[in-house]
Amino acid sequence: MPPEPRTAIATVCLSGTLEDKLAAAAAAGFDGVELFENDLVVSPSSPAEIRRRCADLGLSIDLYQPFRDFEAVPPDVHAANLRRARHKFDVMAELGTDTVLVCSSVSPDAIDDDELAAEQLRAMADLAQQRGMRVAYEALAWGRHVSGYEHAWRIVRRAAHPALGVCLDSFHILSKGHDPAPIRAIPGDKIFFLQLADAPKLPMDVLPWSRHHRLFPGQGEFDLTAFTGHVLAAGYRGPLSLEVFNDVFRQADPRLAARDAMRSLLALKESLGVLDLPAAPALTGHAFAEVVTDPGAGRVLASLGFARTGLHRTKPVELWEQGEARVVVNEGGAAHGAVGAVALASTDPARSARRAEALCAPVLPRARGPREADLASVAAPDGTQVFLCGDDWRDDFVPTGETAGGAGIVGIDHVALTQPFDHFEEAALFYRSVFGLTPSPVTEFAAPFGLLRSRAVAAGEVRLTLEAAVVRRGEWAPAVREPQHVAFACTDALAAAAAMRAAGAPLLDIPGNYYDDLEARLDLPPSRLAALRERSVLYDRDAEGEFLHFYTALAGARVFFEVVQRIGGYRGFGVANAPVRMAAHRARRHAVPPVKTPA
Amino acid sequence: MPPEPRTAIATVCLSGTLEDKLAAAAAAGFDGVELFENDLVVSPSSPAEIRRRCADLGLSIDLYQPFRDFEAVPPDVHAANLRRARHKFDVMAELGTDTVLVCSSVSPDAIDDDELAAEQLRAMADLAQQRGMRVAYEALAWGRHVSGYEHAWRIVRRAAHPALGVCLDSFHILSKGHDPAPIRAIPGDKIFFLQLADAPKLPMDVLPWSRHHRLFPGQGEFDLTAFTGHVLAAGYRGPLSLEVFNDVFRQADPRLAARDAMRSLLALKESLGVLDLPAAPALTGHAFAEVVTDPGAGRVLASLGFARTGLHRTKPVELWEQGEARVVVNEGGAAHGAVGAVALASTDPARSARRAEALCAPVLPRARGPREADLASVAAPDGTQVFLCGDDWRDDFVPTGETAGGAGIVGIDHVALTQPFDHFEEAALFYRSVFGLTPSPVTEFAAPFGLLRSRAVAAGEVRLTLEAAVVRRGEWAPAVREPQHVAFACTDALAAAAAMRAAGAPLLDIPGNYYDDLEARLDLPPSRLAALRERSVLYDRDAEGEFLHFYTALAGARVFFEVVQRIGGYRGFGVANAPVRMAAHRARRHAVPPVKTPA
Repeated sequence: MPPEPRTAIATVCLSGTLEDKLAAAAAAGFDGVELFENDLVVSPSSPAEIRRRCADLGLSIDLYQPFRDFEAVPPDVHAANLRRARHKFDVMAELGTDTVLVCSSVSPDAIDDDELAAEQLRAMADLAQQRGMRVAYEALAWGRHVSGYEHAWRIVRRAAHPALGVCLDSFHILSKGHDPAPIRAIPGDKIFFLQLADAPKLPMDVLPWSRHHRLFPGQGEFDLTAFTGHVLAAGYRGPLSLEVFNDVFRQADPRLAARDAMRSLLALKESLGVLDLPAAPALTGHAFAEVVTDPGAGRVLASLGFARTGLHRTKPVELWEQGEARVVVNEGGAAHGAVGAVALASTDPARSARRAEALCAPVLPRARGPREADLASVAAPDGTQVFLCGDDWRDDFVPTGETAGGAGIVGIDHVALTQPFDHFEEAALFYRSVFGLTPSPVTEFAAPFGLLRSRAVAAGEVRLTLEAAVVRRGEWAPAVREPQHVAFACTDALAAAAAMRAAGAPLLDIPGNYYDDLEARLDLPPSRLAALRERSVLYDRDAEGEFLHFYTALAGARVFFEVVQRIGGYRGFGVANAPVRMAAHRARRHAVPPVKTPA
Repeated sequence: MPPEPRTAIATVCLSGTLEDKLAAAAAAGFDGVELFENDLVVSPSSPAEIRRRCADLGLSIDLYQPFRDFEAVPPDVHAANLRRARHKFDVMAELGTDTVLVCSSVSPDAIDDDELAAEQLRAMADLAQQRGMRVAYEALAWGRHVSGYEHAWRIVRRAAHPALGVCLDSFHILSKGHDPAPIRAIPGDKIFFLQLADAPKLPMDVLPWSRHHRLFPGQGEFDLTAFTGHVLAAGYRGPLSLEVFNDVFRQADPRLAARDAMRSLLALKESLGVLDLPAAPALTGHAFAEVVTDPGAGRVLASLGFARTGLHRTKPVELWEQGEARVVVNEGGAAHGAVGAVALASTDPARSARRAEALCAPVLPRARGPREADLASVAAPDGTQVFLCGDDWRDDFVPTGETAGGAGIVGIDHVALTQPFDHFEEAALFYRSVFGLTPSPVTEFAAPFGLLRSRAVAAGEVRLTLEAAVVRRGEWAPAVREPQHVAFACTDALAAAAAMRAAGAPLLDIPGNYYDDLEARLDLPPSRLAALRERSVLYDRDAEGEFLHFYTALAGARVFFEVVQRIGGYRGFGVANAPVRMAAHRARRHAVPPVKTPA
C-alpha cells in the first residue's frame, strides 16, 4: 500500500473565528491547516500566538493563502507586489509556514505574457528562497490570462526556480472539464500543494459556482478518486487539503463540519487504496425502526394491524410487529428526531461498528441490562441512532404473546429521515461511506412552506430518504423541519387502505382535486381511478412500474406512517405527491399563526 | 392620465396553503390572482369552493396556470393533450375563470414546426371558445423550439383564432436580452395576459435563474417601467400580474410578502403615470436616531462626548446630543431591533406620511401627550419605526440644561439597519419607493459566521445601510441577526478616537494583524499607519477619497456606535472592514457554545 498522505483543511471551509476553526480542525483529527489570510487579519492573536496555538493543537500550518494578482503586471505594480510579498513573508515567518499560494491574476493590470509572468514569479520565488520559503502558483478557473493548470505549469517550468511550483485545485480543473490525466507528467516535487473540493454540476458561471457551491469530496459529482490518483501517481507527497467555499458550511457548527470533512478524506483515501478500513458488511434489511413519541403511536400502529409483541426488559419501550415490519415505540428519553433510530440488519454488526468508528461516526454509549443484546449503535450527523443488528436484538424484549390479524403489511419499505438544514449534504456522504448505501440524485420540489430537496440512500432492502429545506425555515413555517416517517410495504394498497380505515386508522384524506388532476394527466382505467379516489390512495408511475401509497395523520409531534405498494420495478418514493400530503397534514394540524415580529 | 390597470398576483409567489395565499392577496388589496395548478391540486377545497372563497374575498381568478408541453407534438400525444385540456377547462369552469396559460413546450416530443404548433393551438382554442374561454400562449425562455415572444406571436398570428392570444412575461423576455419595443406592434386585444417579474442580473442559466431568483418589480435590475409601458402602449387592458418564483418569498410570511408585492406594483404604476401618488418630499437629514436598550447606551454616549440635553415629557426616554447628532435612548417598550427608530427630517412631514400610507407602509398609532409634537411614523418591513419630522419634534423633550464639551462629533453619518433574513429585498424597495432614497448595488462579503449581503439607501445627508445574512442563521451563530448601529460623523477621527478613549469610551481594539495587512496592501505614510494602529482606527479608500472609522463595544444587547470621517468624495461605508469589527465584538462577547442538537 502506498504511504498514507497527511490531511489538511483550509480555515475558510469552517465557520467562526480563527480560534473556533483551529479547535474544530484539531478535534476532527486533521494534521494541518491552510491559513486563509482574512481569518488571520481579523484575529486578535498575533501570528506568533497562532503558531503556538497550532503547535499546542498538533496542527501544522501547511499553506498561507491566497496571494492574489501578482504576476505579469507593469513594473510599478510589480514593485508594489514585491513589497506586499515581503510583508507576507514576514507574517509567514512568524507563523512558521513555508508555502504561499499565488492565484493566477484576475486584475485588469495583468498582461497576457507568459515570459513576463515567469520572470515576475521568479523574482517572488527568489525572495521566498532567501527566507527558506516557496511559492505555489495556481490557475484560477476564471484567471484573466491563465485559467488552466497546464498553462500554469508551463509558466512554472519556464521560470525554472527551485522555490516555485504549482498548486493543483480539483475544482478549478474539473469544473472546466479539463483532463486531469496529464498531471501525471508533472514531476511530483514541483507540485507544491493539492487542494481538493467536490461540487454538484450546476449550470452557472464558474466563479459563483466555486465561491458558493463547493462540497467536500464524495458529496458532489466530480471524480475525486481519479483526480487525486493522478496527483499521487505524479509523486506528490504533500497533504490532501480541503478548500471548500460553501454558503451552508460557512455558517454551520465548525465542529460538525470538520468531522464530516475528515470523513470525506478518509473515504477518499480508502478509495485511493492508501488507507485500509474494515469493509462495509452487507446490510440485509431493516431490523426495526424506533419512533420516540407519546403513546399515540402505539394506538395508530394497532389501527394499522400491528400487534404489541414485546416489552423491553428495562425501558419504557414497546415492540410492535406485523409481517416483517417491526417498530419500536420509545416513550421515554430525548431524541433528535421523531424517528429516534433506524436499525439495520448487518451480516457482521461488529465490523459495521468498527467501520463506522473508523469513519468518525461516534459510537454511542449504551446502558445495557444483563440479558440484553449488545447492539452496536452509531450517531448519524443529525443525531439519529443507527443500530447495527444481528439476530439477537429481540432478546431485549419480553414476549407479550399478543398477535394480530394483520392488515397486509409485510415489512418496512423505507424510513424517511427529514434532515436539519445544515446536514443534508453530509447525511448522504455518511450513509454512503459508513454503510455502503448508494445515494440517488437530488430532487428539488416546491412544498407549501418552501422548496425542499430530497434524495434516497439505498442498498437492497435498506432504503432511507433524506429531505431538507433549501432555505432554512423561519417563523412562518409550521415547523423548522418536516416530520419524519416510517413507510411500510404491502402487496395491495387499495385493500390495506380499506381494511385500515375500517379499523379506525387515522388515514389522511386526499383532496378530490388531486384525483381530477391525476385523471387529466394519466389515462388510468376509470375503476382504478375511482378506487384510488375512494380510498385516498396516491399514485405515481415511471417507466419501470407503479407506486400506490397512503399516509396516516401525525401519530406524535413529528412522526407519521405511510403504507406503500410497489408494482413492477418502480424505484422511487412518490416524491411528486409529497406536497399533497404536507397540505393535508397542515389542514389537520394548524391554525394560521398571527403575524410575528421578524427575528 | 391613462386608466389605472387592475392588479393580480400568482399564488405561486406566496407561501402557505392556497387558503393562506388567497387571504394574503386579498388583505394586500390585489384585485385578482393567477391560480397556480399545484396550489389547487393540494387544496382540500373544491374548485367551486375556491370560487366562492375568492368571491368572498373580492378576488377574481384571472388566470389558470400553467398548462405545459401542449403544442407541436405527434398525433397520439396531441390527442392526450386535448383530453387533458378538456379536463382543465372543466376545472376552470368550476373556478369561474376564463383564461389558461399555455407555456411553450419543453418536451422532447415537440417538433420544430410552427404550422403544426399553430394548428394544434387552434384546436385547443376551439375547445376553449366552446366554453367561453381563451388560451394565452407564452414563450418560455428555455422553450424547446419557441423561446422568444416574437416567435410565440408569429404562431398565434398564424393560428388566427379569436380565442388564442399571447401571454407576455417580462422575465422570459428581458432575461434573454430581447428588445421589448416590438411589443407595441402586437394588437392589444391579442395580448391576453401580462406577467411581471424583476430579477438581479445573475451569471447562470436562465432556467434556475427564473425558478429561484425572480423578484418583485423594482427589486431587481430589469427596466419594468419601459417594458410595461410598451405593453400598455400596445393597448393591453388586462391586469398587471406578478409571477415571481423566489426561494425566499416561497417560505416567508405571505401576508408580508403580498404587501410588499402590492407596493412594488403601486410604485410601478406611479412610474408609468397611471397612478397619482403624493410626491416624496425632500429629506434634509437625520433628525435623530432612537435606540431601544438598557441604560448602558447613555453611559457610552456620554463617553463619546454627548450630553443628555432632554427628558421626554411622558416616557422613559432621553435625548442625547453632540453637534447635529441626536440620539434618543428609549429604555422602555418593545422594539423590533436595537435601533428602534430612524427619524428623517422632511420638508413636508404630512405629505411624507400620506405617501407612505398610499404605498402600504402602515402608519403607526402613537399615544401623544398634550404638549407633544405630532410626529408621523410608519413601519418599515422589519418593524423599524420611521419618523418623519419637521422642526417641532424637540418640543416633546424638557431641556435639562446639560451641555458637554463634545469630542468632535458633528452629526449622524448613517444608521446601519441590519435586516431579518426574509426582508432584505423588500427593505430596499420600501426605502426607495416610499422615501425616494437611492439603493446602491448589493455587496456580498464573508463574515466569521457566514456570508452577508449589504447595500445602502441614501439621498443627500440621509444614509441607511441594510445588511442581512445570505443563509438564514442557525444555532451556531452568536445571533440570528448582527447588531445594528448608529454611525456619527466627525472631522478628525484620529483625534476623536484619542479623546474618547481618554474619556473612558469602550472602543473596540483592532488586531495588529489588520494593520500589518493594511501596510502590505497600501502604501500609507508610516506615521499615518502608526496613528491608525495606535488608536484602533480602521481605514478604507477608493478612487474618490478616504474613510477612517472606529467602533464602540456593544452598548446594549444588539446595538453599538461608530464614528466615521469621510475625506474627499468617499461614498462607501467601509464594508470591507466589517468582518474585523465582527470578530472583535465576538472576542469581547461570547464563549464558544456547546455543540447543540440540530433542529
